Amino acid sequence: MLIVKKFGGTSVANKERIFNVAKRCIEDYREGHQVVVVLSAMGKQTDVLLDMAKDINPKAHKRELDMLLTTGEQTSVALMAMAMDSLGVPAVSLNAFQVAMHTTSDYGNARLRKIDAKRIRYELDNRRIVVITGFQGINKYNDYTTLGRGGSDTTAVALAAALNADACEIYTDVDGVFTADPRVVPNARKLSEITYDEMLELASLGAGVLHNRSVEMAKKYGVQLVVRSSLNTNEGTVVKEDNKMEKMLVSGVATDKNVVHFAVEGLENKPGVAFKLFHHLANHNVNVDMILQSVEHGESQDISFTVTEDMADIAMETLERHGDTSLKCDNIKMVKDVAKVSIVGAGMMSNPGVAAKMFEALYDAGINIRQISTSEIRVSVLIDEKYAEPAAQAVHDAFSLEE
Amino acid sequence: MLIVKKFGGTSVANKERIFNVAKRCIEDYREGHQVVVVLSAMGKQTDVLLDMAKDINPKAHKRELDMLLTTGEQTSVALMAMAMDSLGVPAVSLNAFQVAMHTTSDYGNARLRKIDAKRIRYELDNRRIVVITGFQGINKYNDYTTLGRGGSDTTAVALAAALNADACEIYTDVDGVFTADPRVVPNARKLSEITYDEMLELASLGAGVLHNRSVEMAKKYGVQLVVRSSLNTNEGTVVKEDNKMEKMLVSGVATDKNVVHFAVEGLENKPGVAFKLFHHLANHNVNVDMILQSVEHGESQDISFTVTEDMADIAMETLERHGDTSLKCDNIKMVKDVAKVSIVGAGMMSNPGVAAKMFEALYDAGINIRQISTSEIRVSVLIDEKYAEPAAQAVHDAFSLEE
Repeated sequence: MLIVKKFGGTSVANKERIFNVAKRCIEDYREGHQVVVVLSAMGKQTDVLLDMAKDINPKAHKRELDMLLTTGEQTSVALMAMAMDSLGVPAVSLNAFQVAMHTTSDYGNARLRKIDAKRIRYELDNRRIVVITGFQGINKYNDYTTLGRGGSDTTAVALAAALNADACEIYTDVDGVFTADPRVVPNARKLSEITYDEMLELASLGAGVLHNRSVEMAKKYGVQLVVRSSLNTNEGTVVKEDNKMEKMLVSGVATDKNVVHFAVEGLENKPGVAFKLFHHLANHNVNVDMILQSVEHGESQDISFTVTEDMADIAMETLERHGDTSLKCDNIKMVKDVAKVSIVGAGMMSNPGVAAKMFEALYDAGINIRQISTSEIRVSVLIDEKYAEPAAQAVHDAFSLEE
Repeated sequence: MLIVKKFGGTSVANKERIFNVAKRCIEDYREGHQVVVVLSAMGKQTDVLLDMAKDINPKAHKRELDMLLTTGEQTSVALMAMAMDSLGVPAVSLNAFQVAMHTTSDYGNARLRKIDAKRIRYELDNRRIVVITGFQGINKYNDYTTLGRGGSDTTAVALAAALNADACEIYTDVDGVFTADPRVVPNARKLSEITYDEMLELASLGAGVLHNRSVEMAKKYGVQLVVRSSLNTNEGTVVKEDNKMEKMLVSGVATDKNVVHFAVEGLENKPGVAFKLFHHLANHNVNVDMILQSVEHGESQDISFTVTEDMADIAMETLERHGDTSLKCDNIKMVKDVAKVSIVGAGMMSNPGVAAKMFEALYDAGINIRQISTSEIRVSVLIDEKYAEPAAQAVHDAFSLEE
């Protein structure tokens, strides 16, 4: 078997943990498997480097930031190869140049385009464990790029696809994907399987185990993922295509407090207003979620939506700047203490009444719903932040997810 | 003009120093010159990385050590480019892959083979300062290599040769090359010029301003060097070919305490004995200096030589192991508290009596000479370590080097 194993920064934060990971990889190697390991930078090293850069130049060019950041993973992989070697197993570290890992040109947020498998194959054929820098690539100018948040997961999935790997294991600090955040819902249960689409919804809802881009890529190339803990040998959660899986009505409940609600009131009731509003926000890179356009009432209408907390100030500024001139609205309201609670399930599509059951559970718990948004396999509600935990618990109970 | 400027680790050890270097480079840039900057890793970063590696695997493979170490210079160059950018000057950092800087395959001690000038030229033509990682290269396997001690100086000289630069400035923490170490001989004088050959002798004698390999390369490719301080704007010392230079009888006095003296006594007086002895030492990578083979006395002979301090134990071990069997000597003596004092001067070749004058000065100072060795432009004597300073001063005075 050819196995790709990805470990995050906390898993390689110090000598002891590096050796733990090394031993874990060596077990597979000794069973005769070919092992490719993808690593992030050690612990908080990426943040340390970002702080160094900020201290020198708060507006540093992203090209140079990527040049700096890529040293982080290179350090991890070199040390890991040394650790494996000291345990008697030949290992070789490779960076984005050596693989090579080609990406688009966007510094800080590049996308993988093509991975050369030749060097990796050569090293595997010589019975070496191959330790590869996650998160980084090179663009057509031969400059380093980085893949943005969750980049190392994406590297692992892309490698698994390029190498046609038999398994792609994403190691994290939790046991797998749960029906809800166990810190929020104590009786949350670990899922043994989940579909790509469910995982995508959960990831975008802030469940945070896997980044969206890596799941999208896994889906696109049919790479079966296993999310499991680097701290124990528990089974983990398999993320795969849904055709062979019994479809769960609801797979999980996600809670997201990183939400700010905006209401733009008294907008002119004429075509193009909504376009203008979201166009201004998009120009300032503000990602918008849960859009609701009110039923018109006479001359004016209201539009409300949510953004993430880090975008709230930019969104407010943008709206205020254009509020008088191009938008012509009466009032802009921002509410920060809101939360989004969502249920996700591939079986939802063919089962009406799921949303109603969720709303009923919240009503029974005395929780008011501010806004609703849905996709084919997801229902999200916006509620007051203080009710986030009881809401998640109530919905979890209503669908008996602990069973 | 195209100027290559090299700054060592102490010159980029922190934010303040990085900006000092940046400003210094920008001055040349603003005068219209093309500027290439070669940097070492920040401060003691290389040692920090070596310690990390040692902690993980004391016998780490050199290939992985180089993979680790090269992150040091990459960090410096990225931060430097950011600093220049924040001062309003466009800069781009390049590592060994990006240049590319091709070397032999020897990890940890590679030699530069070929530098591609294309990318550098492109960046210079676009009026950017180009900041390049010193000390590192890539070999034919596409793996990182490092150039060993003084590697960044070598990188700078090689770049100056490849780019046909008009100047190659090596910045250090002293004002240039002196007639003697100013800490040893207080009235030592800074030389305005020195030949490659003199510099080579001084470098190998531990004067330490420039590494031998960089001087050898400068001589080979006719790259005129300037050694000057990064702390002030003093003129520095020009290192160049001697044909247009007035030849100094003696350019400088070098003191080297990193010397251990060995005497192997009572060796069989037959052919091949010296060969055997030095062959054993060479097999253990022990570099030998100041060899003296005694006049034979009957059946036996003595051979004495010096090694550097870090090699003393290995040398002793090797000699003891072979002392009885293949060498058949009576006795091995090791003396650690010795020092080598040397005079260097290109004018020596055509001026007899220089050595005699040196010996006289030492005799007048009451200093006993243990051993003598000479080259065309150098005379070295081995003396007791405690006399190193007065010997250097006496010789310096005898040749009136302070004038």
